Order: sequence, then structure tokens, then C-alpha cells
Amino acid sequence: MTGSRAPRLSVATILNPRSVAVVGASEDLRKFGSRVLKNTIHGGFAGRIIPVNPRREHIFGLPAVASVDRLANPVDVAVIAVPRTAVRDTITQCAAIGVGCCVIITAGFSEIDAAGADLQEELVQIARRAGMRLIGPNCLGLLNTHARLLLNSSPAMTVTPFHTGAIAHLSQSGALMATTYNRGVEDQARFSTAVSLGNQADLELCDFIEYLAGDSHTRVITLYVEGFKDPQRFVEAVRRCRSAGKPVLMVKAGTTEVGARVTRSHTASLASTQRVLEAVCREEGVLLLDDMRGMMQSAEVFARFGVPAGDGICVISGSGGAGALCADRLAERSLRLASFSIDTREKLETLFEPSQLGNPLDMGALREKSFTHVGDGGLAIAAADPDVSAVLVPITTGPMLGEFARAMVESIRATGKPALFVVIQGSADDGAREILKQEGMLVFETLDEAFRVLECWMAASMFPAAVGLPERPPGLPEKPVNHELPLLPTEHEVKTLVARYGIATVHEQLAGNADDAAAAAQKVGYPVALKASCRSLVHKSDVGGVFLNLEDEQALRAAWDQITQRLGPDLESCLICRMEPADAEMILGISHDPDFGPMVLFGLGGLVAEIVDDVVLTPAPVDPQRVLALLQTLKLWPLLNGARGRQKLDTDAVCNMISRLSWLGDDLRDMLLELDLNPVMVRRQGEGAVAVDARATLKTASQNINTGLSSARSD
Amino acid sequence: MTGSRAPRLSVATILNPRSVAVVGASEDLRKFGSRVLKNTIHGGFAGRIIPVNPRREHIFGLPAVASVDRLANPVDVAVIAVPRTAVRDTITQCAAIGVGCCVIITAGFSEIDAAGADLQEELVQIARRAGMRLIGPNCLGLLNTHARLLLNSSPAMTVTPFHTGAIAHLSQSGALMATTYNRGVEDQARFSTAVSLGNQADLELCDFIEYLAGDSHTRVITLYVEGFKDPQRFVEAVRRCRSAGKPVLMVKAGTTEVGARVTRSHTASLASTQRVLEAVCREEGVLLLDDMRGMMQSAEVFARFGVPAGDGICVISGSGGAGALCADRLAERSLRLASFSIDTREKLETLFEPSQLGNPLDMGALREKSFTHVGDGGLAIAAADPDVSAVLVPITTGPMLGEFARAMVESIRATGKPALFVVIQGSADDGAREILKQEGMLVFETLDEAFRVLECWMAASMFPAAVGLPERPPGLPEKPVNHELPLLPTEHEVKTLVARYGIATVHEQLAGNADDAAAAAQKVGYPVALKASCRSLVHKSDVGGVFLNLEDEQALRAAWDQITQRLGPDLESCLICRMEPADAEMILGISHDPDFGPMVLFGLGGLVAEIVDDVVLTPAPVDPQRVLALLQTLKLWPLLNGARGRQKLDTDAVCNMISRLSWLGDDLRDMLLELDLNPVMVRRQGEGAVAVDARATLKTASQNINTGLSSARSD
Repeated sequence: MTGSRAPRLSVATILNPRSVAVVGASEDLRKFGSRVLKNTIHGGFAGRIIPVNPRREHIFGLPAVASVDRLANPVDVAVIAVPRTAVRDTITQCAAIGVGCCVIITAGFSEIDAAGADLQEELVQIARRAGMRLIGPNCLGLLNTHARLLLNSSPAMTVTPFHTGAIAHLSQSGALMATTYNRGVEDQARFSTAVSLGNQADLELCDFIEYLAGDSHTRVITLYVEGFKDPQRFVEAVRRCRSAGKPVLMVKAGTTEVGARVTRSHTASLASTQRVLEAVCREEGVLLLDDMRGMMQSAEVFARFGVPAGDGICVISGSGGAGALCADRLAERSLRLASFSIDTREKLETLFEPSQLGNPLDMGALREKSFTHVGDGGLAIAAADPDVSAVLVPITTGPMLGEFARAMVESIRATGKPALFVVIQGSADDGAREILKQEGMLVFETLDEAFRVLECWMAASMFPAAVGLPERPPGLPEKPVNHELPLLPTEHEVKTLVARYGIATVHEQLAGNADDAAAAAQKVGYPVALKASCRSLVHKSDVGGVFLNLEDEQALRAAWDQITQRLGPDLESCLICRMEPADAEMILGISHDPDFGPMVLFGLGGLVAEIVDDVVLTPAPVDPQRVLALLQTLKLWPLLNGARGRQKLDTDAVCNMISRLSWLGDDLRDMLLELDLNPVMVRRQGEGAVAVDARATLKTASQNINTGLSSARSD
Repeated sequence: MTGSRAPRLSVATILNPRSVAVVGASEDLRKFGSRVLKNTIHGGFAGRIIPVNPRREHIFGLPAVASVDRLANPVDVAVIAVPRTAVRDTITQCAAIGVGCCVIITAGFSEIDAAGADLQEELVQIARRAGMRLIGPNCLGLLNTHARLLLNSSPAMTVTPFHTGAIAHLSQSGALMATTYNRGVEDQARFSTAVSLGNQADLELCDFIEYLAGDSHTRVITLYVEGFKDPQRFVEAVRRCRSAGKPVLMVKAGTTEVGARVTRSHTASLASTQRVLEAVCREEGVLLLDDMRGMMQSAEVFARFGVPAGDGICVISGSGGAGALCADRLAERSLRLASFSIDTREKLETLFEPSQLGNPLDMGALREKSFTHVGDGGLAIAAADPDVSAVLVPITTGPMLGEFARAMVESIRATGKPALFVVIQGSADDGAREILKQEGMLVFETLDEAFRVLECWMAASMFPAAVGLPERPPGLPEKPVNHELPLLPTEHEVKTLVARYGIATVHEQLAGNADDAAAAAQKVGYPVALKASCRSLVHKSDVGGVFLNLEDEQALRAAWDQITQRLGPDLESCLICRMEPADAEMILGISHDPDFGPMVLFGLGGLVAEIVDDVVLTPAPVDPQRVLALLQTLKLWPLLNGARGRQKLDTDAVCNMISRLSWLGDDLRDMLLELDLNPVMVRRQGEGAVAVDARATLKTASQNINTGLSSARSD
């Protein structure tokens, strides 16, 4: 393999090419190449379009060339839709004549087997040597509405109405991309660009996100992702979008164990756990959704209205029942019904039975029952209320719906506020659906869809502000210094390590026999805990290697005898620890995610943590202020914060401890697989917090950081 | 007010009348009466239809009569669509001439104000004296497809295709009923009957459920409920449906606090808490849904296929991405992907790339890529697998979809198994949507809808078997005997009461001064807890009235001094309790629901229960076997059951204790507002469980049951 050449074309030019060739073009619409050519012509692309086929002079009326090497001038983009066996030669020819980028539709490469992966790698090498980029293989192509370029193989292109727009979409599934585009446009979503990424042999997700962050046509970016090729680059790329004020929405497949198994077989991508992904997205301001259609509907709201000004929602419905159901479903999603001002209420009372006046507004409670005069159902008054940031209008069957719809459109336009109309019925809509769509209103077919959009849209206002890297707190060890940490450190070794990072640990001493233990206990003070210490023993309590609350020397010696009996020659020594009273027990931990690196974890600890999952994860390092904000999202928070007349606990100490632990995780990086402090006993305000138990598993023995263990061993 | 007469007509006759009159009929379709008449004619009702209008001789071609008293023969059902001020006279006339049932469309009664409620009550009295039934007021009417009777005011009737079917629907919202009917039919749901219940002044929800349990046309019953008029009767009614093998599906509005506020203003119905409702529905086999459209889609699956034979689901998709998303969403709902047998796999390997063969089946992995030959995508083979009870087919854009769809229909028909098709795209479906519908397949527009239906359908196989009333365990006090329990019993009184029901409580004694306390502690044994006892003090620990783990007399006397200082003259006496070690702490409780009576509650107890909600509720009384099954649904269960090498705890004792407590709840009924035992310390297997703390609030002082308190006081 020889070296790479600088790419001939930027992503911007690939998506805005001057000329495209379709290799494997035909008029048989069962074939990929035929559909790519047809779509490209159908889209109205203004550049050159050259079909390549050895057996035809014209295809769909365009003059064809017989083979790639007969192309008179170099083309910017060549779509490759030839049988798998012919792909290598075709790519070689394209590289030779100076094609800028090949979009390889053909499948059967890394997604199938090792031989396919080898062949794919060979294609990449051929391309790189020539400075040619690749999209795919195993992809469907791309589209750029602003260039009128529908360069893809989907039958959906010819039936989907053509519109330009501000939503970009990047997808690891070709079929989903086309499906989502078709349904999206019919749902009123308007696209700028869409790319089917395929196996991402060369150009990958992040290349396109980086481009879109600067693309003037794109205001919101939507992703369908099965796995990240370069997770760190992904984080950098979405930060660029955030700086550019462009929301990033993502559907991630493989969020469950079952789903992850499927995506592995689908595109051979490895998945981080869902929790890690959620933590990264939360911190980086990426909105996660669980449905493609919902993502596009939400994206269109961002494209039209930006981020919401407030979180108050007004519901107006012709059915009290539909209003009640909306109130329930909104409350379940922690979405807030707006509170009308006194002024608004007074105005509404001229229209409604006062006893039935509220939000949701029930048009069944209008004083005028027979609808001989049709108004807007109070929409103009309600929507103008300062606490209303979005209006949800579920439309049920009833008389005069068409006229209602027209009046509502006029009212909502006057306020300039976002309105989501849901036409719940089918044909019995008196034309309202069509009227609303013609007027450019956002119309949904089910309440769930509108709820999901509102949830996603409102979530955008709750992201933490983007912040720089936290500052390394004073007093932390400098790195790197030469010291060794064993793969499976003992509890005492882990505690010694974290203590070097300024984390308080329980008073304790190691002892090799009963007399030493008694002396140690005298020193740390009764009551004490006695814990077996041996490198191979992770879950000490499961084998009877832990005695708690030993009150005096007699109890300690009795426990010592039992531990030595139970563990026999496995026992190396024992740890004598002071018992710490708990006002609250927490777990603090670090785990290393293969994609996103060190993550710090914290939450409810102790015995109950085994059955109750109340922890939060966030990328390391993290500063104490952000820890505090995350701590407040836990169920544990009221206990820490002194609920029900209890003493407030030392949350400052906890936040500092977690931040320091996160720096340890950042220092050790992928040397560390996981480290747990559990329980950490949290004392009252001003009295600190102390780690009582600790364990860790390393991936490789550390040799390059100052763990402080040598000094610890000598004490 | 004079007495009632026996009803002239049964519900069955009202829904299958020989004649109907429409009072307030006209040809102005903005008016309710006009639409009722038009719908009734449009439906093709074969009985007599008589418009009543003083100013018209003919309406829509039918001869009209000028007033109710001019009706020549008594009619079975009269629809009343006259102004509110005319309703009383009209009802009086109907009663006089022997109308069987009035359906009152007119609104403005109990849902508006007290005057409206009074007027409504007057109508009921007029009707009852004549043996005439009422539906409504404030309703929309009814329909019975098998009688071709569309006797309601909704504009939806004339645009909805007419079909007979097996789904009955009862609704507290008229607009939702009509909307749901229209959308339901267009979603392929087929109805037998639907009734808009309105204010339920006379005939109510349960009258119709009872009828439908025996209606031969109805196989599944769907409800939209805002509040129950007679909750106990509701329980009896759904039991009848269960005995008749008819699933009951319900959407209940007001499940959140916000929603409940809305339904109160909508139909003035009071709501039980959502948890109570969920518990009752779980035990009675009622399926709760959160969306009307989803309810009808689910109902149609029950109507066609009964309850599922197994829980294995097979997903076949043209998009690996859609398959992966389905796998995630199904897993989140605890729905299970079927495991193909070896035989099935071998057959599928003839069609698919083996490395990509699995469930979900990805048609993108078919060996034949160009689709020159279109099959069924492996559906026939996969659906025939014995572990497959339902097939989910998400259809994304792609070539030859129409032909695929046809082949799939044939294959699924041959297996006789239920298939849910989801056409994710819009118009780019190559006609597949229409083909599937024409062939009578179940077609959905969004994945979420299909997931919801599968979740609802599969849930039906997980209901507990219907059982009779549990047997009263031996040794319980007999009732009623004369004794008094104060409204706010002390901790010791509550413990004494539950002890009479065979519930173990901690060893304890009351003491009025420090010397008595010391003597009591000697008797119960150190360490002890010292707790203030006074009737007005519910949360003792909030005011420093509790000292735990007192090791000796010195500590006890010091604590006594502090308690007397803190509480001063409020202090009546103190309780000295033996400290109980906890292997696990539980909460056990009874609460009285205004709708459904005494409920027993149990789950994770102790301090952490304040922040972690891990409890289950079930109607009292309940037998120990059912308690065990519910206990196993809690997060707490692994702790009780000896997870991670721990000792198994005494779950038998816990189940017996909960059952006995439930009988206490049943005995006290609405005398008791609530009673908590928290914590209950659960010991190891064979060692029992013991209630350490207790409190209760009564509604009225008990006088008629043997609480055993007098004997307790003397011990």
C-alpha cells in the first residue's frame, strides 16, 4: 500500500457537483443503476449527467458512454451500480480518469463477511492513492434539493413532491432514508440534503456533520445512527453544530440489548450502552428520539420556529374528552399547560361557560352551541396569552369544521406562535385537514405524534449551556509519573489511589494476623469492620469475607477466626476499617466506554442500589457545578438536600469528590475498565463524605501515572 | 317525589327499537336534530322513523308530526334535540304517551352548574315515575350496526363507510365517540354498537356493559371513561364480560392530577387515583390504553384473533434499520422476538445471506438482490415457525413493493397467523397499502401504533386467572362486635389492632416516666428504641420524638430527658420497643379508595421508600398466593428471594401478613382512611417478619367491629 493523496473534492463540492456519471445505468427499473439515473433526470439537475453502459447508446434519452475510461472529461461524482464482482475494476478506472467521488450503491462488502471487508478495504486504498473519495458501499446515494440533485436509487424520488428546505438528514440505513424522506415531505418536512452513508468505508457520518454545520441551506440536522466510526470526532462535530445554532436530532438503533445484536449484524457497528449515549447527548445538546417520522416532524418545527421561547402549552379542542386525554399525556411527559392571565380569562369568559373555562379549552363549552356563527373557538385570545409558547389543537368530528379551521388559521397567523393541529378522525374532517395543509399549518394524524414533537421541541430549552473543558482542581497528582498499579488492585490499593486525588476514605489498616488486627482496631477505634483482602476476591461479602459492627476485641477475634476458616489459604490479609454512620449512602464510579471514553457515575448507593437504579452518568472530567445540577435530577436528591425536616447533607463535599474522581478517570483513560466507591457515606453539611468500600479493574497495568501507591504502601 | 315504575324497555330493546322519533328534527344541518334524522335515514334503519317539528309537514321526505303528544303510537326511542328550556316539557310529554327511552342530546345540565344538576334530577324523576329510561343528557346518541341504526347527531355518520362488526364502544365523550368510530372504521375496525353516555342521569356505563356481556354480536368491549358512577357495579360488570370471554379495553381520562382536574370540569366525575384504577383493572382483566385510536386498533385484533396463543413475535422488513428500531422498541415494551427453530433457520438459509439471518428478518439480506424474481421475503417460512404468534411487517420504500405485498398476503393467509403491516412511507408505497387493505390485512401508518397493539394484545395472555373471593384465614377476629377505635389511634393502638389479625409486631411497652421506661427496656431487652406517643403526632421523627439504638439505661434516660424537653406538655407517654435487625425493610399499608374500597399496598420500606417508589397495590382482601405473584413484580423481590448469594428471606410470612392485613382492610371498609406498617422487618426464611412502626387514620370511630383493643389495653 502506498500513501494517500489529498482529496480532489471537498464534501461541499461532492454534494454540489458539476457533473455526475451513473455507472451501470439502464432502463430496467428493477435495477439500481436505472433508478439512480431516472431520479437524477427527474430531479432536474442542471449539471452534466452521463449514463455509462457498454450495450446502449442512449438511456432515458441521454447519450451513454460504453465504459468509465471513455468518459471524455473527468466527472465530479460517479455512482457505481454494477455487480459486486465488477466493483474493483470500476473503482480503479474511476480513480485513473480523475473522478472526484464514487458513490458505491453495490452491497456485499464488510456487512457480509471478512472477504467482503477485505475487498472494501482494497477499494478504499485504490481511492485514497488517487485522492478520490468514496460514499458507501452498500448505500442508496444522496440528495441535495438546493442543487436539484436526487442522486439515489430509491423509487420514492419520483413520487415525492419536490421542495427545498432546511432539514439535513444523514442515515446509516438507505431504505429508512428514502422512506423518511417520502413520509417527511408528505408530513410537511422540507429537506436540504440527505445522504445514505452505507458502510462508511471512506466518507463517514462526521464528514457530513462537519459540512452541514457550515451549510447555509441547513438549519437542523437529523441522524439515523447504528454505530459511530469515530465517536470522539462525533462529539467535536456536534459541538460545531451547537456553536452554529443548529439543533442535532438523532434516532439511534441498538439502544436495547436485542436491538444492539441486530445492528451488529446489520452494519457490524459496535454500540456503546444506551446510558452512555444518553449522557453524551445530554451534555452535547443532541436530541434523542425513538422514531424516524417523529424526528422529521420535530425537525420541521425547529426549522420553522427555532428553539421555544417558553414552555407553556395551550390546548384547544372541540371535545372535552380529547382535551382531558391531552392533559394526561402532556403531564406524563412533564409538559406544562400554560396558565391564562386574568386578562385572557376575562376575554374568554365572553365566549365560554365560565364553569367549564380552562386550559385545555373545550369548544363544547362555548356558549353558542348551534354554530350558526362560527368563530375560531377562542384561539386568538388564548394563543395571545403571554404564557402560551405553543398551541395544540386536537380536531374531532363536529359540524362546521372546515369553517373553524379557516378561522383558526387566521388567528394563529396573527399571533405568530407555533400551532400543532391534530386531525384525529379520518374522512369526517369536513375538509379541515386539507384546508390546514394548504395554509401551511403543521398537521398531525395522531395525538402521539404531536406529543412527541412538543416533548422534543421543549427539551431543546432545557439543555445545559455549552461549556469549555473543566479546570483541573488544585492538589491532584500530575501525570505522567512512573508507578505501577496491578490489574486487579485490592480494596486498600484503590482507596490509596483515590485518596491521592483528595477523596476522603475511611480510617483503616491492614493486618496479617489476629494480634495485628486487634492493635489496628485499637488505633482506628471501635466499632470496626473486618474485611478479607485478597486480589482475586471481588465480591467479599458473597463468600462471608466481611464482618461489620464489631464492638470490641472479643468480637473482632471471633470474626478473624471465622474469616480464616472460610477463606483458608486464599486469605492474604484483612482490612480493619472504622465503621462510618450513614446519613445517606451513595455509589460513585468510573467506567470506561469503548466509544466515548471515561464516564463518571453517581447516585443512590448501599444495599438498595442493587435493586433500585438511581444513578446518573456523565463524561469525565466534570466540574462540581455541573455535578450539582445532575445530582438534583436524582431521586436521592431530597435525602441529600434535607427533605422532611432532616439535616441537609454535605452536597458540596459530594460534588467535589465526584469531580475529583472524574479527573482520576480522565487521567487513567482506557487503562481503567471500572472503579466503584460504594458505599460513600455522606455526612451532614460541613462534615464531608467518606468512601467506605472500593474496588477497581484495570485493563492494562499502569506504568505512566503517579498513582501514589508506593508512598501508600510504605505507610 | 313518588316511586319508580319498572322500566318499559330493556337495554336490548332500546338498542334494537321498533320505532324512533326525533324531537327537534329539521333540515338545517347546523342543528343537532337535523343531523340525527339524516343519519338515521342514511343508516337504513328498517323500523319507523318519525320527525317531530311543529312547523314542518315533511322533513327529508318523511312525514313529520307537530308535537310529541301527536305521536299516534307509542315509540320505543325518542331523541330529544330541543333547546334546554324546552326539555322538561318534552320529557313530560314523552313519559305521558309511553315512550320507552329518551335520548337527550341537549346539553347544559349537571355539567354546567347546580341549577342544571337540579333540572337533570327532575327529568330523571319524571322518567322513573313513568318507567321510561333516559340516555344522556349532554350526549350524542348511539348506533347499532346490526340494526342499521345510526341514531346520533354526528356529521361523521354520513361519510363513514358502513360495516357491521364485533366491537362495542361506550363513551363519556360524544365527540370522541364519533371521531373514534370514523377513524376506527377507516382503520379497519368493525363495530357492533356504540353509545354516547353523556351525563348518565339514568342509564349509565354499567347498564350497557352488562347488556354487551350477553350481546351475541359483540366480541370485544371498548370504553372511554372519565369517572365511574358506580365503581362496584363496574367491577361486577367487567367480571361478567370476563366470564363471557369478551376482552374489555378502556381509555381512562384523568389519570394524572392535571387531567383529573379537567375531567372534573368536563363531566364532574371524581377520579380514583391512577394506581388504584390500574390495580383494579389488572386484577379484573381490563386492558388500559392511553389512546382512542390505539384502543380500536387493538380491539380489532381481539375481534379477529381472540387472545394470543403465545408471545413470540417475528419482524420482517425490507430495511435492516427499521428491523433494528423494531427490535429496540419491542424490547422496551418487554415484547419478545420469537426464536426460530433449527428447521426454520435451515429453510431461511436458502433465501438469505447466513451472516445476516435472524429475527428481525432483513429482506435487504436476501441473496437475490435485483428482485427480478419477487417472493414473499421469507414470510411463509418464518410465520410458520411454532414460536411465532404474530408477525410484524414494517414496509419501507423499495422496488416491487406491490408484488411483495401480494405474495405476503398469500403467505400469511396460509399460516392463519395474525400479521400487522406498517406502511412507513407515504405515497411511495407502490400501491402496497391499498393492496393490503383490499385483502383485509391489518395495516398501520406508524410503527408506534403497531407496537401499542402488540403490547395490548400480548398483555391479555398475562392476566391473572379470574378467581373467587379469597377465603378468610383462620384466627381472624369475627365481626361485628362492639368496640371503639379512636379516629387517630396511637402507634401502640394500631399495633395492637393488627396483632389481633395475626400480624407480628415488635416487642414493646408504654411508659409514663423514665423509671418505668428503664424497667420496660429491661423487659424487652437492649438495644431499644424510644418513641414519643401522643395522638396528635403522626410524624414523630420530624419533631425529634424518636431515638433509635439505645444501648443501655444511661442512653435511654438521656434520650428520655431530650424527648420530654422537645415535646413538653404534648407528650403523653413513650413507647419502648426492641430494636429489630433488618434483612429487608418493607412497607405494608391499607388505604381506602372512594371508588373501589379498601386497597392493600406493599413494597420497599424504610427511609429509602420516601424517594424510591417500589410498591404494588391490590384490592382487599387478597390471598397469600396472589400476594406472592405481585411481590415478584417488585424491584424488591431479588432482595427477598436471596439474590447474590444472600439468605432467602421469609416471603411466606410476608405474604401471610399482607393477606391478613388485607382482611383487616376489608373488615374496616370505609371506617379506615389509611393504615401503614413501616418498616416491617423481614427476617430470614423461617424466622418471620415483624412490624416495627405503625400509624393509622380512621374516618369514623369504629363501634361495630371487634378490634381487640379493650383486651390490648389491659395487657
